[in-house]
Amino acid sequence: MVGGGAGAFIGQVHRMAAELDGMAQLVCGAFASDPERSVRSGTEIYHLPESRCYPDFQTLCSAEAQLPEHQRMQFVVVVTPNHMHFPVAQAALQSGFHVVCDKPVTLNLAQALALQQLVEATGLCFALTHNYTGYPMVREAAALVQSGALGEIRRINCAYLQGWLAQETSDNKQADWRTDPQRAGSAGCFGDIGSHGENLISYVTGLPVTSVCADLSTFVPGRALDDDGNVLLRFSSGARGVLSASQIAVGKENDLCLEIYGEQGGLEWRQSDANSLIVRWADRPYEVRRAAWPGTSEAASAATRVPAGHPEGYLEAFAEIYRNVCLHLQGQPHQGFPGIEAGVRGMRFIDAVVASSAQGAVWVDV
Amino acid sequence: MVGGGAGAFIGQVHRMAAELDGMAQLVCGAFASDPERSVRSGTEIYHLPESRCYPDFQTLCSAEAQLPEHQRMQFVVVVTPNHMHFPVAQAALQSGFHVVCDKPVTLNLAQALALQQLVEATGLCFALTHNYTGYPMVREAAALVQSGALGEIRRINCAYLQGWLAQETSDNKQADWRTDPQRAGSAGCFGDIGSHGENLISYVTGLPVTSVCADLSTFVPGRALDDDGNVLLRFSSGARGVLSASQIAVGKENDLCLEIYGEQGGLEWRQSDANSLIVRWADRPYEVRRAAWPGTSEAASAATRVPAGHPEGYLEAFAEIYRNVCLHLQGQPHQGFPGIEAGVRGMRFIDAVVASSAQGAVWVDV
Amino acid sequence: MVGGGAGAFIGQVHRMAAELDGMAQLVCGAFASDPERSVRSGTEIYHLPESRCYPDFQTLCSAEAQLPEHQRMQFVVVVTPNHMHFPVAQAALQSGFHVVCDKPVTLNLAQALALQQLVEATGLCFALTHNYTGYPMVREAAALVQSGALGEIRRINCAYLQGWLAQETSDNKQADWRTDPQRAGSAGCFGDIGSHGENLISYVTGLPVTSVCADLSTFVPGRALDDDGNVLLRFSSGARGVLSASQIAVGKENDLCLEIYGEQGGLEWRQSDANSLIVRWADRPYEVRRAAWPGTSEAASAATRVPAGHPEGYLEAFAEIYRNVCLHLQGQPHQGFPGIEAGVRGMRFIDAVVASSAQGAVWVDV
Amino acid sequence: MVGGGAGAFIGQVHRMAAELDGMAQLVCGAFASDPERSVRSGTEIYHLPESRCYPDFQTLCSAEAQLPEHQRMQFVVVVTPNHMHFPVAQAALQSGFHVVCDKPVTLNLAQALALQQLVEATGLCFALTHNYTGYPMVREAAALVQSGALGEIRRINCAYLQGWLAQETSDNKQADWRTDPQRAGSAGCFGDIGSHGENLISYVTGLPVTSVCADLSTFVPGRALDDDGNVLLRFSSGARGVLSASQIAVGKENDLCLEIYGEQGGLEWRQSDANSLIVRWADRPYEVRRAAWPGTSEAASAATRVPAGHPEGYLEAFAEIYRNVCLHLQGQPHQGFPGIEAGVRGMRFIDAVVASSAQGAVWVDV
Repeated sequence: MVGGGAGAFIGQVHRMAAELDGMAQLVCGAFASDPERSVRSGTEIYHLPESRCYPDFQTLCSAEAQLPEHQRMQFVVVVTPNHMHFPVAQAALQSGFHVVCDKPVTLNLAQALALQQLVEATGLCFALTHNYTGYPMVREAAALVQSGALGEIRRINCAYLQGWLAQETSDNKQADWRTDPQRAGSAGCFGDIGSHGENLISYVTGLPVTSVCADLSTFVPGRALDDDGNVLLRFSSGARGVLSASQIAVGKENDLCLEIYGEQGGLEWRQSDANSLIVRWADRPYEVRRAAWPGTSEAASAATRVPAGHPEGYLEAFAEIYRNVCLHLQGQPHQGFPGIEAGVRGMRFIDAVVASSAQGAVWVDV
Repeated sequence: MVGGGAGAFIGQVHRMAAELDGMAQLVCGAFASDPERSVRSGTEIYHLPESRCYPDFQTLCSAEAQLPEHQRMQFVVVVTPNHMHFPVAQAALQSGFHVVCDKPVTLNLAQALALQQLVEATGLCFALTHNYTGYPMVREAAALVQSGALGEIRRINCAYLQGWLAQETSDNKQADWRTDPQRAGSAGCFGDIGSHGENLISYVTGLPVTSVCADLSTFVPGRALDDDGNVLLRFSSGARGVLSASQIAVGKENDLCLEIYGEQGGLEWRQSDANSLIVRWADRPYEVRRAAWPGTSEAASAATRVPAGHPEGYLEAFAEIYRNVCLHLQGQPHQGFPGIEAGVRGMRFIDAVVASSAQGAVWVDV
Repeated sequence: MVGGGAGAFIGQVHRMAAELDGMAQLVCGAFASDPERSVRSGTEIYHLPESRCYPDFQTLCSAEAQLPEHQRMQFVVVVTPNHMHFPVAQAALQSGFHVVCDKPVTLNLAQALALQQLVEATGLCFALTHNYTGYPMVREAAALVQSGALGEIRRINCAYLQGWLAQETSDNKQADWRTDPQRAGSAGCFGDIGSHGENLISYVTGLPVTSVCADLSTFVPGRALDDDGNVLLRFSSGARGVLSASQIAVGKENDLCLEIYGEQGGLEWRQSDANSLIVRWADRPYEVRRAAWPGTSEAASAATRVPAGHPEGYLEAFAEIYRNVCLHLQGQPHQGFPGIEAGVRGMRFIDAVVASSAQGAVWVDV
Repeated sequence: MVGGGAGAFIGQVHRMAAELDGMAQLVCGAFASDPERSVRSGTEIYHLPESRCYPDFQTLCSAEAQLPEHQRMQFVVVVTPNHMHFPVAQAALQSGFHVVCDKPVTLNLAQALALQQLVEATGLCFALTHNYTGYPMVREAAALVQSGALGEIRRINCAYLQGWLAQETSDNKQADWRTDPQRAGSAGCFGDIGSHGENLISYVTGLPVTSVCADLSTFVPGRALDDDGNVLLRFSSGARGVLSASQIAVGKENDLCLEIYGEQGGLEWRQSDANSLIVRWADRPYEVRRAAWPGTSEAASAATRVPAGHPEGYLEAFAEIYRNVCLHLQGQPHQGFPGIEAGVRGMRFIDAVVASSAQGAVWVDV
């Protein structure tokens, strides 16, 4: 693992998710930009032997590459701030390691395209942790839409509302880098969570966004990046939609929700009730499909671990990405995971959103 | 009452709402455009004496005006398709009758402005049945926002999604006129329900929309007016928002919802759980204010009739408009009701939305 | 109307419910035990002419009986405290008037049986306002169970929890008589709301309770009647169940809910989401049937007034009792209403509950 | 681990829960009663080295006890059917190993008391996986009740409804032993899930049940043990309650819920919305406390891993038992876990419930 030192909750999330299904284990890492803190984080937080806690990611890659194959790490997990995704992933791939990388894939589109070339050139596995696609009922939603049962898709509403950045923050590592263009990239809220919305829409519908009209805002004085916005969406198929994202929606936790309406039916999913998928029809009562309950798709069932009614949550969904990566690396059948294409598409989306808003909310092609 | 003949469910809604609190009674009307059907509707549906069932609205106004004051109607209720609002309201006002009119106020802005002049000139009462403002928890939301407790408002999300027009319709009187520009006006979905959204936002926040960027769609082939759309909103205060409305969201009933986020807190209301208002804060658990329960405002309490937990619904909210009109006509204190200004503002909004979309979704001032 | 004077919210509820569908109108009454207050309530609260506001119920019955048929009242509504139900209903029936009576039907079983004889002897209509049976989705539940689709019924859970009497009350007319054995009868909480639970179970399932084991409590010191209790239920069919009722469940509004499980499926209904009925199956997603939406029974549809998604509530359900009484009196087809048999059955249930609890919670046959 | 071989989902649950926080690791086991299957399960399901996969629990205990201390297992996890809990726990304790055991603690009370003696005699740690006590909002509920904020407790409602045994089963290992008195004990539904209800009540309120009146049923023909029941509860403090449990509530997943009402307030928790705790008051709006959100207790916060709004579920709650056991074994401060006393109390409860029902639902002291 690269990143995930003290103060970075996402490191533990990746560790728990990676290890949940007994298919992977955290064995080494470079956990912080400061060499001494990097090593100390590894031994103290992750209880790793000091020999596998490296001062920096370059050493991690070179040292591990020289270990005997059965001893060395199998893939690198990148959980740093965005600006380090590219150099770390590059080093890992060039050293022959597969990569699991947090989103958005890179700091900017140029890096994403360069990374795509490298992934293709090395033939190694690259997975992007758009973890919300790991929820059983998100899998069900995708299976349902792509089965055609809803008919041609017309309207898509997606929102991801948080409130944790509603005020100026100080001494908050998570807030600091996310609001700093040097480390986060050209978008704040839309880079961090709007990008999840785009990926979720794309994952569930299979429809690419073709143009956007974005009205981003920065409500907290002194902040350099957007902390809120609404984006009108057009899709190549003729579908229309809107994506809202906010970090200043006071009192909202991580309210990610998706509604999709086709000619014949509609669906609704919210992270706050993640194990339910509401499916609506014109001519009969609406139904609520539940994780691990009869009547859901193979894709959804494969993403559950316990009987229906024992709620599975965020970590389990996150683990689903890792489970499928591991199955893939073992050459076994799996349900897929987001890769470099999703990463490039996400960066194009972010660029288009930022460009649209900068011009006063005009239509920009993705 | 003018309108509300056979097949028009809204006539009975107005009758029930007007009479609920024992302050008004339906005594006469012209219920259909066809003279014979007009009279028959009055006697058969509303059980009125034939003498008070008139062949047309002109006769209604002139005949009633000649009755002794204690016998004649006190106000005219206009529940016709949109294109008849202006001529009927004009006739009523000119005959000296107060008017309660369904929304949108007229077929177009020119008529709305003419009507405004007439209302001001006559000094008579004009009420517009934006009935959703009558829900106790909408009143509570308005009181909360306007108390300043949420701080300055930043983000507003409103959606009104229906699915009943997702397919071509035939032999449906309600659908026919709503999709006909001659009778509905320049907007379909946004005239019928988008206008409720604008009014709800305006009522709760007191903030006027200053410009819109609207992407309207007509998904059902052959339909002359929009049946779906998303509109970016900007407010003079700097707040931003988005309004979605749809008649093709398959499976949705009448899902009107409103979310508002200020600097200090947020609120959420949905018609499907109309007696609850969720209020969120950054530093403590969220609270759910309930109609008729301790801890709600005087404005909300005044809009309830039964103890908490006995749900009140759509008809009771609708009745609230009538109750306040009656209190006003009696010279008693009341909680207010939407008037001609709200009607004019709504028509300006519809015009701006249609113009914006027609130009490819560009920003248009309201 | 008899009862419903100042301070009695239930009088207005009956008036609104009776008049909602335009089939009945409050025309006269004796509204309080004090003659002067009786007349004043009628003119001030209900805006009736003084000539039809009588000093007492005896005068009401005798005077109205002497009016010409087309002028006099058609039925008497009894909304007094329980101890007056019998004398008022008796006087009304003996004067030739149909009766609509609040629940529980009388002060005790002996009165109920006497009333039953009188109803049968006169052949007049007697309706008991177990108003919760008027909710569309309660009608749907009854239709569903009685269709056999759930299979033989095994388990029934019903609860009606309120919190308004959690503390000693003073100067609360509603509380005073409900906690006074002379006016309420032998049961407090179970007479007032437990009886609604029994009726709801019986209405929906058609199964009579055959024996009860009741553990009633009086938590508020000094109170003479139960304010809380749990009752084990056995049914002749072999089904089992439990009924909880409380007036001391702090913070609960009027949380009436019902769950029924049969061999093949289950259902769940709550007053707080009155327009939904959850129906569960073993082999497929659960469905949510909604008032006025396709896929509900004729019985449910007949109990709605507005399109799906415009919530109807307590008053509308209450009005359903009146609508069907009026249809019955007009000789038209209707969906039924609770009558004297339901009243007698309810009194037997209350008696058995009280006797069981008094003996230390032993089984007592109903 | 003892038990958890092929077909036993609970083995994986324990593995995931134990390992989630990086404080424990599954290193060895005897996974099935058949020696060959025991070893194969260990290597195939848990990917353990064959040397640590033992043919039976006796060998596991003796062999591990002879390993050097830093290599051998630290505690034994017992996940067998109930009848094996005692012999396995006994062997483990006698070999000097701490024990984590599934519930109910033993096959019968005599075994539970014998085990209690052994635990006390050895001074070793014994934890019982009443996993529902690990939910953050259950911790919050306990902290709230025990803070006295709700006042003295009056009413407790608990229900645990499942539907998976509504029909006769065949070839279902999980169903087979749970319905077999030789392996499950004297109670079926109440041993398996009713016992969770008793524990949850006891954990949250700190009040012991003093007597029960239980009406158990066996609805599925041919079944030897109860599959449904309702139990009236009395507590030493004067509180009253009711516990419902069912395995034949068709369509219910694992619907565990708890409501508690005190003199000053009430609370409500459901597993299906596990990260919320509803808290009600008489004089203000109800509040919804959320896991990881400001305004919750230290006990609740300590049981979360990710920011609010990223749902944690069943596995995370289960892991909470293990986390606190590990902290305890490390001599660190912790939030506690159920032990042998809870186990003995649970067996007394089951015995009393079964005895009460066998005598026709009479009151039996616990």
